[in-house]
Amino acid sequence: MSSADTKAARRAKFEAVFEKIRDELIEHFAAQGMPEEAIEWYRNSLNYNVPGGKLNRGMSVVDTVEILKGEPLNEEEYFKAALLGWCIELLQAYFLVSDDIMDSSITRRGQPCWYRLPEINLIAINDSFMLEGAIYHLLKVHFRSEPYYADLLDLFHETTYQTEMGQLVDLITAPEDKVDLSKFSLERHRLIVIYKTAFYSFYLPVACALLVSKIPYSYTLPSGATVQPFDVSRSILIPLGEYFQIQDDFLDFSGTPEQIGKIGTDIVDNKCSWVVNTAIRLANPEQRKILDENYGRKDAEKEKVVKALFEELKIRDVYAEYEEKVVGELRQKIDEIVEVPGGLKKEVFNSFLGKIYKRSK
Amino acid sequence: MSSADTKAARRAKFEAVFEKIRDELIEHFAAQGMPEEAIEWYRNSLNYNVPGGKLNRGMSVVDTVEILKGEPLNEEEYFKAALLGWCIELLQAYFLVSDDIMDSSITRRGQPCWYRLPEINLIAINDSFMLEGAIYHLLKVHFRSEPYYADLLDLFHETTYQTEMGQLVDLITAPEDKVDLSKFSLERHRLIVIYKTAFYSFYLPVACALLVSKIPYSYTLPSGATVQPFDVSRSILIPLGEYFQIQDDFLDFSGTPEQIGKIGTDIVDNKCSWVVNTAIRLANPEQRKILDENYGRKDAEKEKVVKALFEELKIRDVYAEYEEKVVGELRQKIDEIVEVPGGLKKEVFNSFLGKIYKRSK
Repeated sequence: MSSADTKAARRAKFEAVFEKIRDELIEHFAAQGMPEEAIEWYRNSLNYNVPGGKLNRGMSVVDTVEILKGEPLNEEEYFKAALLGWCIELLQAYFLVSDDIMDSSITRRGQPCWYRLPEINLIAINDSFMLEGAIYHLLKVHFRSEPYYADLLDLFHETTYQTEMGQLVDLITAPEDKVDLSKFSLERHRLIVIYKTAFYSFYLPVACALLVSKIPYSYTLPSGATVQPFDVSRSILIPLGEYFQIQDDFLDFSGTPEQIGKIGTDIVDNKCSWVVNTAIRLANPEQRKILDENYGRKDAEKEKVVKALFEELKIRDVYAEYEEKVVGELRQKIDEIVEVPGGLKKEVFNSFLGKIYKRSK
Repeated sequence: MSSADTKAARRAKFEAVFEKIRDELIEHFAAQGMPEEAIEWYRNSLNYNVPGGKLNRGMSVVDTVEILKGEPLNEEEYFKAALLGWCIELLQAYFLVSDDIMDSSITRRGQPCWYRLPEINLIAINDSFMLEGAIYHLLKVHFRSEPYYADLLDLFHETTYQTEMGQLVDLITAPEDKVDLSKFSLERHRLIVIYKTAFYSFYLPVACALLVSKIPYSYTLPSGATVQPFDVSRSILIPLGEYFQIQDDFLDFSGTPEQIGKIGTDIVDNKCSWVVNTAIRLANPEQRKILDENYGRKDAEKEKVVKALFEELKIRDVYAEYEEKVVGELRQKIDEIVEVPGGLKKEVFNSFLGKIYKRSK
C-alpha cells in the first residue's frame, strides 16, 4: 500500500469505531423510553456534528498509544484508544456547535453550521450539551473499572474548563462587531491560544494515551532522575499547540485558497490572530493608525490595506524566523527525553511535530 | 426565633457559603493568568446567575445530611454538604442560562435574563458552560480524596445527561412557534418532567447527601432483607418530582398572581403542561377542536377560551383527585422504609413532601 492508502485505511478504521459508538449512544438513549422523534434527532446531531472533521485529535490518541506500546494494538486496545479519540472529537463537536452560534458562523466543514439548519436553530445549544454528555456516558461504560477512571474524568473536566476559559477571553478580546486593538497583544494571543486550543487539541490526546497505556505518573531513570511524564508531555505539547495555531493564523494570511482549501477571513473578522498581534508589536505610530482604521472591517479595500501593511512589516520573515526558533526549541526538548521501557518515547512528540512543521494546509 | 426567622437564618448561612465558593472559583481563574476583564466577567456571571433563586435544591442537600446524621452538623460537615448544594445550584444555573436563550425568555428571577443584557448576548452560552465547568473544579478540590469521588462524578454526569435528554424532548414536543397538540400526551409529559426536572431537582440532592453521609450502597435489615438506599430514594423522589411539576403546572393555571407571584403564561406559550395534557385526554372531539384552535396562541381571547374549557373539563377536580392519590402512594412508600442506624430515614422524604403538599406558591 502507498502511504496515502495507509493513511486512508487508518482513517477508515478509526471512522468505523464511530459507527459503533454512535449506535451505543442511540441504544442507551432509546432504552430510556425516549420518543422516536427524539432518537432520530440525536442520531442526526451525532452524524452531522461529530465525524466530518480532519480527525487529527482523535486519531492522535490511537497513534500515541501505538507508539508507546511499540507494536500493533490488539482489537481491544485499539477500541479503547479509539473510543478516547472519539471522546475528544465529541468534545470538539460540543465546542464547535456552540462556537458557531456565538460567532454567527455560516459554514463548518463544508456544510451549513448545525444551528443554521432551520429546523434546528437554537435547539443546537442543547444538542451541543448532549455531545458533551455523551463523553461521560461512554467513559463510564468503557472505563469505570479502570484504576485511572477518576484521573480520566479529571483530565476531561480540566481540559474542558480550560477551553471554556480561553473561549471567554477570546470572545471579549475580539468581538466581531467592535474593533479595539488596544485589547490585543502577543501575550493575550498566547493565553487565548494555549487555553482555547492547545490543551484540548494537543495535551488531551497524549494525556489520554498515557492513561490508557498505564504509563506511571512518575518513574525513575537509570541516572536516578525522576520523570513526570504528564508534566513533560505538557511542557512540549503546549508550545507545540501554540506553534500550530500561530501557523494556522499565518496560513490564513499567507496561504492561497488552493493551499489551505478556504479563503482567509481573519482580517475582516477582527480575529485576535498572531499576524495582527505581531503587526501591532512592530508598527510605528502611523502604521498603527492604519491598523486601527482598517482591521476588522467588512470591506475588501480595507482588508487590502491591512494585507499590504503586513507585507511592509515583513510578517512572512518574522514568521519564518519564529518557526525555526520554536521548532529548534521543541526538538531540543524532545531530544532531552530519556527513553526507558514503559516510559515516554520521543516519537510521540516527533510524530506531532512532523505533521505540523512546514505544513502548507 | 420564629419559624420565619429560622428559615431566613438557614438561608443566610447557606448563602454565606456561596461567597466562599465564588471567591475560590475566581481565585483559581485568576491564578491561570486570566486578564482582569475576564475575571470581572466571570465574577459577574456567577453573581448574576447562581444565587438568586429559591435555593430549594441546594439547601435540601444540607437538610438531608442533617436528617441522616440526626444531629447538627459540625462546620466541616456543613461546608461539604453546602458545597454539594451549590454544585446543584450551579448545574441549575447552567440549565437556566441556556434554556432562557433557547426559549427566548425575557426575565428570570425578577431580572432580565443574562443573555438579554446587551453586553452579554450569546457569550451567555459560554458563560453557561463555565457554570457547569465550575462544578467539577469544586468537586475535585473538595472531594478528590473521598472514596466516593468517582460515584459523585458519575452522579452529576448522569443527572446532567438525563436533564439534557428531557430538555430535548421538551423542545421538540412543544416549540413555542408551532402548535401541534398531536405530539402531546400525559405519557410524553411524564417523560419530560421526570428527565427534565425530577432527576436533578429531587433525586440529585438526596443522592449527594447519601454519598457525603457515607450511607452504604446496600445494607441488610434485621429481617434479612437487603436495602439499596439509592434505588429506594429514586423510587420515591422521581414520583415526588413529577407531583411537584404537575402541581407547578396546575398552579400556573389556577393560582392567582398574588399566590404564585407571577402571571401564568403556559397556555399562550404552548407549554406541554399537565393541564393541557389532561384536557386532551378528557376532551370530546368538539372540545379537542377548541383546544387545537386556541392553545399556544399569543392572544388573550384565545387564552380565555382555553381557560373556560379547562374549567368545563373540571381540571381542578381532576387535580385534587390526582394529588390525594399520589400523596397517598408516596406516604405508603415512605412508611415502608425500615429505619436502622446509619441507613435511610423516613424524615428525608417526609420533609420534601411536607414542603410540597398543598403548597399554593
